[in-house]
Amino acid sequence: MIEGHERRRERLARVALNRIAEPGDLRMAAVVAELGAIDALAWASRPGPSAESDDPSASTDVRGSVRADVAERLRRLDPAGELADAERRGLRFVVPGDAEWPLSVDDLQHGPRLVERGGVPIGLWVRGPVRLDALAESVAVVGARTATTYGTEVARELAADVARGGWAVVSGAAFGIDQAAHRGALAASGVTVAVLACGADRAYPAAHEPLLEHLARHGAVVSEAPPGAAPMRVRFLARNRLIAALTRGTVVVEAAPRSGALNTANWADGLSRVVMGVPGPVTAVTSAGVHALLRRGGAVVTSGAEVLESVGDAGTHLAVEPRGAEQPRDALTPRQRQVLDGVPVARPAPTTAVARTAGVGAAETERTLDELLARGLVDAADGGWRLAEPARPTLGA
Amino acid sequence: MIEGHERRRERLARVALNRIAEPGDLRMAAVVAELGAIDALAWASRPGPSAESDDPSASTDVRGSVRADVAERLRRLDPAGELADAERRGLRFVVPGDAEWPLSVDDLQHGPRLVERGGVPIGLWVRGPVRLDALAESVAVVGARTATTYGTEVARELAADVARGGWAVVSGAAFGIDQAAHRGALAASGVTVAVLACGADRAYPAAHEPLLEHLARHGAVVSEAPPGAAPMRVRFLARNRLIAALTRGTVVVEAAPRSGALNTANWADGLSRVVMGVPGPVTAVTSAGVHALLRRGGAVVTSGAEVLESVGDAGTHLAVEPRGAEQPRDALTPRQRQVLDGVPVARPAPTTAVARTAGVGAAETERTLDELLARGLVDAADGGWRLAEPARPTLGA
Repeated sequence: MIEGHERRRERLARVALNRIAEPGDLRMAAVVAELGAIDALAWASRPGPSAESDDPSASTDVRGSVRADVAERLRRLDPAGELADAERRGLRFVVPGDAEWPLSVDDLQHGPRLVERGGVPIGLWVRGPVRLDALAESVAVVGARTATTYGTEVARELAADVARGGWAVVSGAAFGIDQAAHRGALAASGVTVAVLACGADRAYPAAHEPLLEHLARHGAVVSEAPPGAAPMRVRFLARNRLIAALTRGTVVVEAAPRSGALNTANWADGLSRVVMGVPGPVTAVTSAGVHALLRRGGAVVTSGAEVLESVGDAGTHLAVEPRGAEQPRDALTPRQRQVLDGVPVARPAPTTAVARTAGVGAAETERTLDELLARGLVDAADGGWRLAEPARPTLGA
Repeated sequence: MIEGHERRRERLARVALNRIAEPGDLRMAAVVAELGAIDALAWASRPGPSAESDDPSASTDVRGSVRADVAERLRRLDPAGELADAERRGLRFVVPGDAEWPLSVDDLQHGPRLVERGGVPIGLWVRGPVRLDALAESVAVVGARTATTYGTEVARELAADVARGGWAVVSGAAFGIDQAAHRGALAASGVTVAVLACGADRAYPAAHEPLLEHLARHGAVVSEAPPGAAPMRVRFLARNRLIAALTRGTVVVEAAPRSGALNTANWADGLSRVVMGVPGPVTAVTSAGVHALLRRGGAVVTSGAEVLESVGDAGTHLAVEPRGAEQPRDALTPRQRQVLDGVPVARPAPTTAVARTAGVGAAETERTLDELLARGLVDAADGGWRLAEPARPTLGA
């Protein structure tokens, strides 16, 4: 598709700005939001003093520091060449206004700032057939890299169920929970997308190159950082904000206190997304961060169905509340239950005592006890009645 | 202590009424609430038609049905003899107005009705040195009888911590979680009380006779059912209401869907007590009931400290939020952190690149990198810098 001259200029301006600004750089996001990409680039490219003395407004220092940082580097860039090269290697650069642009990330415009990161990305580099606007119905499944077998099993099953429900699974392609989430969605032939802290053309962690290649063929690999960018701490934090923004909710499967997955959950919370956590043993440090999240108000989810119930429009996804095995009591008439409730657990009682406790006449009690005996719910013993084994287990606290 | 004539009449009337009414019998509770115990007994003892045609009010049928049921049995009772006999066997009968009466159970007057049970008990039979008014600061710890090792360990530790915090632990002396809760409190030399569905002089389950004897010597064994009463289904349900009413909150440690512990939690919820649940693996059916409870709004608790924080007056008990091990980053200056954030995870970058990413001058970056190298947070490799192993683990999602 040939695009118009203005769109092309806008895209190339964003390629250049994307190359000079760190992901989630608040200063750059502010300048682009204020001037637009083309004017922001023109302004940034002009050599000039690092502060403009004729403008006393608060944004002067911000603009000045951006310009001092970038003017020199901009002169050496070739956005058109870079874009063409990236496209040859299967990468596209999605910018606001594109049909594929995921509108959900625009929430970052007035979204939270964490560790001085925030704002709408200048553009998103994408490798793979899945379009980003398909993430309108998506869930982030994230968690510990040092996950347990429990955590990875649960993440895989949960992600598979989310994918089977027609929702995309977004994660970060890290070891542990992330990769289990991607693999679960893939196993269910669902849509899954990895958002990376390094360039979308790179494999980090290196051991996940096959997984990332698979995602690039069947899902998508996304990054706010330009092609070739290395994974760095700031980029992980900015990446987490993007995972939270792209999705309707974030599920944390396992997380030690202070883990990166909790950072993603914080972004999700700040963006008014649904924050969910999968509980685990309270004795496991790998679940301690999740439990802290749940105590701060995160929603408890134990299955993909419950995730979809939490993020879906009300009533669309109704998780089936777990129920015990059908009890023999359920099949009884009210009268039969009343009499059964009058039968002792251990020491047998005569029919008259059962009748009194149950508040039912003696003749009717006798007849009903025979029915209960036929159903195997009571035993006749020592001239009296008591509950049969199968009728006992639901009694106590 | 010699008690006054009226108090004595009241107590004996309640002994008699307690003998003829099932625990939690709503009809009897209503009549006693309306007439008082002495008049309720006098009225119930009068022979009469089962409905009074001269009174068209709604309570006619209720009173009538109670009277028909009880008049005959009342004639055969000897409340004074029964009370004396019980006292010889170490049982006391605590009634409203006694200094020991636990005021919390009066909340049952206008409390919930579940499966046609509810109301304030006519009296409570108690065996053991702990006074019931000591339960003003108490927590119920209940759960599955078919508990796992995980559940019983957690229940024991949690109960021990609650007891060490000076709060009493109330449970039902059942197998599994209940007994672990009692034993945990005992191990911490704390106060613990068992509330039974059978008479307080009986041992149910029989295998817990040593535990119950221990509780009767060091804590208390309580029942709404009269001495000698057998454990029956209705009595378990009424007992659960009492556990919920006596305590400031109920913690469910493990519970399959539809278990009795959830019934206790429902009573607690209806009585506006704090409802808490200890999470566990979502793969364990023994935790499925707890997770359902948490999804309905129960508070996630993972320790005794968190339980006390939930039930205590605001600020009295502050659970320490679990934190990860202190990170090397925590000891850094803001400038050191800023530079560290500019260092790549894997592929080494030269000082100039780190300076640009960090937004710090080259000279200062170089000096700071040396400091970080001395702290073992960065490695110098291939003419550049990258994060050292210990600085990496908190990066990803």
